[in-house]
Amino acid sequence: MPSYKAPLRDQQFVLHEVLGAVDALREMPRYAELDVDTVNQVVEEAGKFCEDKLLPINASGDQEGCTYDPATKAVKTPAGFKEAYDDFREAGWQGLAAETEYGGQGLPHLLQIAFYEMQYSTNQAWAMYPGLTIGAYECLLKHGSREQKDLFLPKMTTGQWTGTMCLTEPHCGTDLGMLRTKAEPQADGSYRLTGEKIFISSGEHDMAENIIHLVLARLPDAPQGTKGISLFIVPKFVPVGAGADAKVGARNGLYCGGLEHKMGINGNSTCQIILDGATGWLVGEPNKGLNAMFVMMNGARLGVGVQGLGITEVAYQNAVAYAKERIQGRSLSGPAAPDQPADPIIVHPDVRRMLLTARAYAEGGRAFAYWVALMADTQLSHPDHDRKKFGADMMSLMTPIVKAFMTDNGFLCASECLQVFGGHGYIRQWGMEQFVRDARINMIYEGTNGIQALDLAGRKILMDNGAKLRAFGRMVTEFIEENGTRPDMNEFVTPLADIGDKVQKLTMELGMKAMANRDEVGAAAVPYLRTVGHLVYSYFWARMAKVALERVKADGDAVDPFYRHKLMVARFYFQRLLPETATSIRAARAGSATLMELPADAF
Amino acid sequence: MPSYKAPLRDQQFVLHEVLGAVDALREMPRYAELDVDTVNQVVEEAGKFCEDKLLPINASGDQEGCTYDPATKAVKTPAGFKEAYDDFREAGWQGLAAETEYGGQGLPHLLQIAFYEMQYSTNQAWAMYPGLTIGAYECLLKHGSREQKDLFLPKMTTGQWTGTMCLTEPHCGTDLGMLRTKAEPQADGSYRLTGEKIFISSGEHDMAENIIHLVLARLPDAPQGTKGISLFIVPKFVPVGAGADAKVGARNGLYCGGLEHKMGINGNSTCQIILDGATGWLVGEPNKGLNAMFVMMNGARLGVGVQGLGITEVAYQNAVAYAKERIQGRSLSGPAAPDQPADPIIVHPDVRRMLLTARAYAEGGRAFAYWVALMADTQLSHPDHDRKKFGADMMSLMTPIVKAFMTDNGFLCASECLQVFGGHGYIRQWGMEQFVRDARINMIYEGTNGIQALDLAGRKILMDNGAKLRAFGRMVTEFIEENGTRPDMNEFVTPLADIGDKVQKLTMELGMKAMANRDEVGAAAVPYLRTVGHLVYSYFWARMAKVALERVKADGDAVDPFYRHKLMVARFYFQRLLPETATSIRAARAGSATLMELPADAF
Repeated sequence: MPSYKAPLRDQQFVLHEVLGAVDALREMPRYAELDVDTVNQVVEEAGKFCEDKLLPINASGDQEGCTYDPATKAVKTPAGFKEAYDDFREAGWQGLAAETEYGGQGLPHLLQIAFYEMQYSTNQAWAMYPGLTIGAYECLLKHGSREQKDLFLPKMTTGQWTGTMCLTEPHCGTDLGMLRTKAEPQADGSYRLTGEKIFISSGEHDMAENIIHLVLARLPDAPQGTKGISLFIVPKFVPVGAGADAKVGARNGLYCGGLEHKMGINGNSTCQIILDGATGWLVGEPNKGLNAMFVMMNGARLGVGVQGLGITEVAYQNAVAYAKERIQGRSLSGPAAPDQPADPIIVHPDVRRMLLTARAYAEGGRAFAYWVALMADTQLSHPDHDRKKFGADMMSLMTPIVKAFMTDNGFLCASECLQVFGGHGYIRQWGMEQFVRDARINMIYEGTNGIQALDLAGRKILMDNGAKLRAFGRMVTEFIEENGTRPDMNEFVTPLADIGDKVQKLTMELGMKAMANRDEVGAAAVPYLRTVGHLVYSYFWARMAKVALERVKADGDAVDPFYRHKLMVARFYFQRLLPETATSIRAARAGSATLMELPADAF
Repeated sequence: MPSYKAPLRDQQFVLHEVLGAVDALREMPRYAELDVDTVNQVVEEAGKFCEDKLLPINASGDQEGCTYDPATKAVKTPAGFKEAYDDFREAGWQGLAAETEYGGQGLPHLLQIAFYEMQYSTNQAWAMYPGLTIGAYECLLKHGSREQKDLFLPKMTTGQWTGTMCLTEPHCGTDLGMLRTKAEPQADGSYRLTGEKIFISSGEHDMAENIIHLVLARLPDAPQGTKGISLFIVPKFVPVGAGADAKVGARNGLYCGGLEHKMGINGNSTCQIILDGATGWLVGEPNKGLNAMFVMMNGARLGVGVQGLGITEVAYQNAVAYAKERIQGRSLSGPAAPDQPADPIIVHPDVRRMLLTARAYAEGGRAFAYWVALMADTQLSHPDHDRKKFGADMMSLMTPIVKAFMTDNGFLCASECLQVFGGHGYIRQWGMEQFVRDARINMIYEGTNGIQALDLAGRKILMDNGAKLRAFGRMVTEFIEENGTRPDMNEFVTPLADIGDKVQKLTMELGMKAMANRDEVGAAAVPYLRTVGHLVYSYFWARMAKVALERVKADGDAVDPFYRHKLMVARFYFQRLLPETATSIRAARAGSATLMELPADAF
């Protein structure tokens, strides 16, 4: 069974030394009292929870899966899932970043993201239950009425009630404009919902006393397409009472019609949800439901990106342990362990290539994702308007990169780490193949990575004439100007400046081509996202290298080797991973003609 | 459930129009009577078998898997596997390319490879049972004694007895020098084998009356390492009688100790095999067993590469069908199906990118693999010494490329085709996720792709100072000289010449670096193999484009659209896939320092 240790040292490096997160957060009145010790303690305790409670039920949860009883429509989660959730709930973890007003601890979203990373390393399927609750909580926090918030948020903060997002239907996922579930207004102000949803993660289970479904549906006479979609709260049990005293009342007219059998995340119940005249309540304005749901979806996209990070980290840790233990063959440059019958396979350059790929993507992704989470806190809580707007712009720009770049990398890295195990990687008991299977969903759900790429290139960049990208670019330029003349930073700043220039040119070129033919955006989007993703990672790797270099300079021979190793991984990133852009730029520039000329019926 | 149609048109294009295979084979006395109709008929009938018998039991075989009875040590294959095997055997398919002397049909190996492709498209797990028999047959054909051949080959030709290769032990796979299974000589000339083997594909099953294990073991006092390994025949039942009249006798002292639970290929029994004083017979000379087993391993490596091709083809066919049927969203450049609520997703450039990636790798891989199979026939059967040697050199050079490049591509393409399905791709019932799981093993077994890359760069290229690569290069240069002045071939010949030059330079550079430090080979090997793989595919794509252009020129407007489409896919290959080499060359040149500087304990 795989092992896992929370990467506390690296998390602290990112939080404190790279991002200066506590100082940044203390600028926000809400976090004025935050201190480094609290942050470290929370992360450490959260890590312990993941190591002790989630990891042990990850492989067993995958193998047992969820079970559905057609007679009662009930779903049983795998052994240990409910107990771990009880522990989680009782320790107050669900409310970590929730408002104190609703019983939460009011800590920064940044800490939630750090916690997510460790949850996803140890049990992605389990973590999706509380994760979706947070998404539903945030959507209601932003768009719910006072009464709705008072009724639902306290129970969701404690985790007594969990949440879901009900978007997809059998005939539509990406294209929600086609959805058919209908909501008919009732005399008492409620609505009666009828329809069928599929792929509803955590849609039915035995872990909590109630499940709060956020459901997209159409009002009678709603306009066609996405402008006719409204959002509804549809609880499994209709609540009685209010606030913290609310109890569950009558069973509502929605139920799980069956579970999907999937490639992975088997411990999470992926439900068909039948709405059979279920009672629901409108959230926000009629026909503005998709907009409201995007709060949840954007949060979920960040979470999914962090799933890519979590899986990369745990796959890396296990592949390293195996590569150090497994002896097989000899180093090409002479025996490394002549007293043994063979050398540990970590002597082999290509084994190191696979390990370092995962490590560089994990550490780069951690710095990036935690920074984006800090931007989320900045957007939500910073008192200064410009800083707040910058946070919002970065969140908007980076969401598709977090989601797509990090999950592509997560799948790649899980697969590379499996490869380190040779044949054993393919065998269930080692657990590596589960990481690959679990990681594969991340490239699909919450909008496929292809959709993310269109979102980035089209909506986030071309539609505002590159303003958000330029705002990020100014930060990069500033860094280059500050550090470009330091010879010791040269190996990091030069490739950063180079990829920055290239992204700028590529973006202008794409903008020009897009004016003539919109298919040019679709043809370029995926390699374009890979290219911008590398610009972002180059920037964070250069920042991390700078911190490390300064510590090496300050501490000399006495320096914590952590910093020397950080520089080595940075070098690996720039020399072996960034060069992907040599291909991705060519692909992004190749144009749409070769994609579009083959007639559809000739495929 | 996935569908499949044998790609007969493209197979015929490759066999007859690109490779001129029948003419090439007729130069060999053994195939002097071969004709185009026979070839087409065999491929067509073989395709029908795969469509009708293998495809229907692929998904069910995956879900049911093999079951092991600890009491009897018996393995039950999934429902339908035995029946399909009976049909296969009774129709004589097992002996397709086997010697007529032993009851085979004596057809070219090229046809066997074409059949393999279709078997692997429709049921990789099943196809591994007869596939391993062929490997064991070929090993005995080359290295067995007259008596051994007479006893075993007729039964293996009919498929009454199946074969395995028993190499891996719990502590060694890649490094067979460490293997411990021992073989003690007995007074009657037989040997008594004791030890434990793992990962034995098709190691125990209920499909045939006997299983012929080819087992690597050590004689007493054998030298350490790979020079002390001998090869033995260890049948499940000791045969009685001789030749076609042989019967199974006493149960031998080897048995299946358990099955592995795997990521995929669940219909194939991956066995732990316990040798408990089993009776065996030496094959070939003592201590030369690894050499003899390499006959089987090289054959298996070609087969595994074709598994990558087969999965790519079937994943492509299913993704195309889905992309044409699934309506979702609108074309970026305006509605393509305004009468429908949405357009089929095949209108989207990025969906086409995924589909064309699979198609270009499938069609390129087919031309390449079939050509390598023709080289196998040339090596075995050509009367001309130089031609024979050229065949042998190409087989040797190309084996690691077939194995690694085609299986990397197979996994990538299965994953891209899954992605076309969105969320449905992740659901078991659509069958796409099985292709991804099955495809993942191909990068591992028969020598990991990292090992293949070392074999290519080290043994096959640097060790003979690039002679075999130059022999292939001469063929490429000849093609460039013949076609370089044709303006219509420019778009194909120019990038081919470019990648040819780059491979040449990269190879020289690597050779120089390797003299100073062997780790440079290990650091460069994997991206080097990707680079050479693209040189090879560029060559075959240019050849295919030439054939297509000539037909377009000859037939004008009346030309079969097949040829115009072939040119479009060729263009896609050169513009969107070949550019991977911009990255792989940089990675191959990056050197070993960034891989080796991090101390092992700092991972």
